[in-house]
Amino acid sequence: MLFHVKMTVKLPHDMPAERAAQLKADEKELAQRLMREGTWRHLWRIAGQYANYSVFDVQSVEALHDTLMQLPLFPYMDIEVTGLCRHPSSIHADDC
Amino acid sequence: MLFHVKMTVKLPHDMPAERAAQLKADEKELAQRLMREGTWRHLWRIAGQYANYSVFDVQSVEALHDTLMQLPLFPYMDIEVTGLCRHPSSIHADDC
Amino acid sequence: MLFHVKMTVKLPHDMPAERAAQLKADEKELAQRLMREGTWRHLWRIAGQYANYSVFDVQSVEALHDTLMQLPLFPYMDIEVTGLCRHPSSIHADDC
Amino acid sequence: MLFHVKMTVKLPHDMPAERAAQLKADEKELAQRLMREGTWRHLWRIAGQYANYSVFDVQSVEALHDTLMQLPLFPYMDIEVTGLCRHPSSIHADDC
Amino acid sequence: MLFHVKMTVKLPHDMPAERAAQLKADEKELAQRLMREGTWRHLWRIAGQYANYSVFDVQSVEALHDTLMQLPLFPYMDIEVTGLCRHPSSIHADDC
Amino acid sequence: MLFHVKMTVKLPHDMPAERAAQLKADEKELAQRLMREGTWRHLWRIAGQYANYSVFDVQSVEALHDTLMQLPLFPYMDIEVTGLCRHPSSIHADDC
Amino acid sequence: MLFHVKMTVKLPHDMPAERAAQLKADEKELAQRLMREGTWRHLWRIAGQYANYSVFDVQSVEALHDTLMQLPLFPYMDIEVTGLCRHPSSIHADDC
Amino acid sequence: MLFHVKMTVKLPHDMPAERAAQLKADEKELAQRLMREGTWRHLWRIAGQYANYSVFDVQSVEALHDTLMQLPLFPYMDIEVTGLCRHPSSIHADDC
Amino acid sequence: MLFHVKMTVKLPHDMPAERAAQLKADEKELAQRLMREGTWRHLWRIAGQYANYSVFDVQSVEALHDTLMQLPLFPYMDIEVTGLCRHPSSIHADDC
Amino acid sequence: MLFHVKMTVKLPHDMPAERAAQLKADEKELAQRLMREGTWRHLWRIAGQYANYSVFDVQSVEALHDTLMQLPLFPYMDIEVTGLCRHPSSIHADDC
Repeated sequence: MLFHVKMTVKLPHDMPAERAAQLKADEKELAQRLMREGTWRHLWRIAGQYANYSVFDVQSVEALHDTLMQLPLFPYMDIEVTGLCRHPSSIHADDC
Repeated sequence: MLFHVKMTVKLPHDMPAERAAQLKADEKELAQRLMREGTWRHLWRIAGQYANYSVFDVQSVEALHDTLMQLPLFPYMDIEVTGLCRHPSSIHADDC
Repeated sequence: MLFHVKMTVKLPHDMPAERAAQLKADEKELAQRLMREGTWRHLWRIAGQYANYSVFDVQSVEALHDTLMQLPLFPYMDIEVTGLCRHPSSIHADDC
Repeated sequence: MLFHVKMTVKLPHDMPAERAAQLKADEKELAQRLMREGTWRHLWRIAGQYANYSVFDVQSVEALHDTLMQLPLFPYMDIEVTGLCRHPSSIHADDC
Repeated sequence: MLFHVKMTVKLPHDMPAERAAQLKADEKELAQRLMREGTWRHLWRIAGQYANYSVFDVQSVEALHDTLMQLPLFPYMDIEVTGLCRHPSSIHADDC
Repeated sequence: MLFHVKMTVKLPHDMPAERAAQLKADEKELAQRLMREGTWRHLWRIAGQYANYSVFDVQSVEALHDTLMQLPLFPYMDIEVTGLCRHPSSIHADDC
Repeated sequence: MLFHVKMTVKLPHDMPAERAAQLKADEKELAQRLMREGTWRHLWRIAGQYANYSVFDVQSVEALHDTLMQLPLFPYMDIEVTGLCRHPSSIHADDC
Repeated sequence: MLFHVKMTVKLPHDMPAERAAQLKADEKELAQRLMREGTWRHLWRIAGQYANYSVFDVQSVEALHDTLMQLPLFPYMDIEVTGLCRHPSSIHADDC
Repeated sequence: MLFHVKMTVKLPHDMPAERAAQLKADEKELAQRLMREGTWRHLWRIAGQYANYSVFDVQSVEALHDTLMQLPLFPYMDIEVTGLCRHPSSIHADDC
Repeated sequence: MLFHVKMTVKLPHDMPAERAAQLKADEKELAQRLMREGTWRHLWRIAGQYANYSVFDVQSVEALHDTLMQLPLFPYMDIEVTGLCRHPSSIHADDC
């Protein structure tokens, strides 16, 4: 089941650089594990912003929430979730 | 070059059913040709709405605009375009 | 899997009264069938508005979309969908 | 009398972890007492957000306000209240 | 129980003048009956707009909704409802 | 002359509790004096929020502004002012 | 007493040209009479829009509303009213 | 050339009272000099807010920007600029 | 003097195709004359929308308004005007 | 390929003056180098705001993002990107 997720990261300006670097490194590591496992299907940077559009493939809404909650940057992100369905016009095998 | 596009369709309530059906059939035909050609990379229906999230792969902004303008439903759609970049954390070959 | 849905109905002022009455009767019949089947879990009218908050219990995002699309009033509704998860503090058996 | 309530929690980033943990534990304890008493009828987590949709069953607007005001997280929440009525199409015994 | 209600009237420009006059006359008659009965506690015109702020005194959310639904101008109004409570600083006998 | 005022209070989370308590006590004292004098005609708490709807009866816009400016909580409030007129349908003696 | 008023005119595209011309001529005539009488203190066109910023000098909110209501274009305008006070820094005799 | 300017002042709550008082005094001095020179044509306080509507008379957009930039409160203000034109219905000599 | 202008065109769906074509041809002719004369300094299509960003070089706000008002598509456009100044960092001769 | 970019700068009020001055100097130096290289095609200050409208000429969305990311003020800016196309009515050689 696919969900479209927009994440906008807002780190406080006064966060120590080391702390920010560590959070980003941890985020990247977990993100790549989720990609290898097939959960984080797509990840694109939005031009000009510290934000991304992503597509997740999960078993349930609950699984999506649990995945997002464990992201190290979660406390610093605005997140918008949209449920996706196969479009009757799509011919792509991986659009569902 | 990838662009994220949100299309929301708003057909006038008084459009004759035949006209609407023809427009949708023409839209589907063109959409599927653009998918086969690799231009319309992804197409998902947004749950509960007559709207979709799409990803286009084009040579330029100009090419994207020309593609969207020729869609039969273009005069009846609200369209939002966002430029996408490869995300440094993505490991997917087709996320760029 | 639960989804929270807000539906706001906007019938055109020039729709013939009979047509509106028929649509509403058909909507009610289908809604009650979906309630009996367990799909439409909750339905409340929003005070002062021709709108409702509902909770649907479906197998997938796709099933939710198919259900909403077949509602007779769908072409006249603004619909907002939100995915719901069990809350760790809930003690109610039917909150998931 | 039912009210639909959306609560969005915004804890300051610089709140000490212990203080946050204590607030959440107190919130949970009170929430579950209110659920056992029948006041907090439904509670769902919103996917991807530190927020919930709830339904309260109270004797009056005043009782609702007093209940919300005593929540330990109240000073850190954005709250939206909507009055609910029985929907003429609902067949559920507990939708009122 | 008090509710604050904002009503904004939007009559279609092509409504025949007689029809509009009849609707307004019927609205006024019902409004004044509801005022005499104590249901419609306050009614003020908003300066420069075809809109009003009102305060209703009803037994329940349901009673409020039923009252608003029967207003002849209901199909042509945007309505916002807010629950009111006695303010701990108020000394006015009729502020609750 | 009547004005409808919405006040939303936003105290900084790091304000010392004593300072907040003093501000609220001062606010209450002044509010009740203004009520006794007939300036602050109505005051209702908005359900679920640290906010109120009020109606002021003043000689001029200037008098309204001067009154609001001297409220101890003024620096911490978002304020929206709306001019009110007697509604032609109102039968209440005190709706003007 | 001064009020700042923003008026945005939205004539229906299908209004006959004669009807529009008559409305505008009537509006201009009344506007100029109100200016000569001192009620309509300032009137400026907003660049690039069919809209104006105005300042009215009236005895009361009621007088302002009555004035705006009688404008021939009133049914086709969005109107925003803001109460103005003398600014303590102003040295202009006519800023109050 | 006239411009309509809305200024909303947002001083940080933790600014020392002396610093705020000095900024306001400096602002007032410069504002009154600009009024005497004819640049700051009108200045009105918005009722209930720490904000004003102003009209500036300048030689160019550049001159307006330079004037606003040198205001002592500039770093603490939200500013909205709107170009004004003589309205064809205005009969006031000073509305341009 | 430069102004940034965003124009969004909204032709009614029921406008006869010939009428629309004539309006667009007239618009193009006038636009190109204004470009040759140096008034319409830049004109870009916004990707995916029937809208443009433009830069005008005019003698005054009044001249800008008169220019925009005479555009054949003016009655069907939403227009936003922003005053531009030379940026202290710009090295381009034509950025002012 | 052209992109329209709006940048709004929001420096924290408590940033040391030296740090702000250094950031602005670095920003200016890089901006001017990008202008000399032809990447930053236009740069205009928005009247009354610490913000600018810019036009960038880049090889790809990726190149645009990389350019914006390296701006010293990037962490303190709200950025909106819009893709631009040659307008069929433009006669300017440099509008593409």
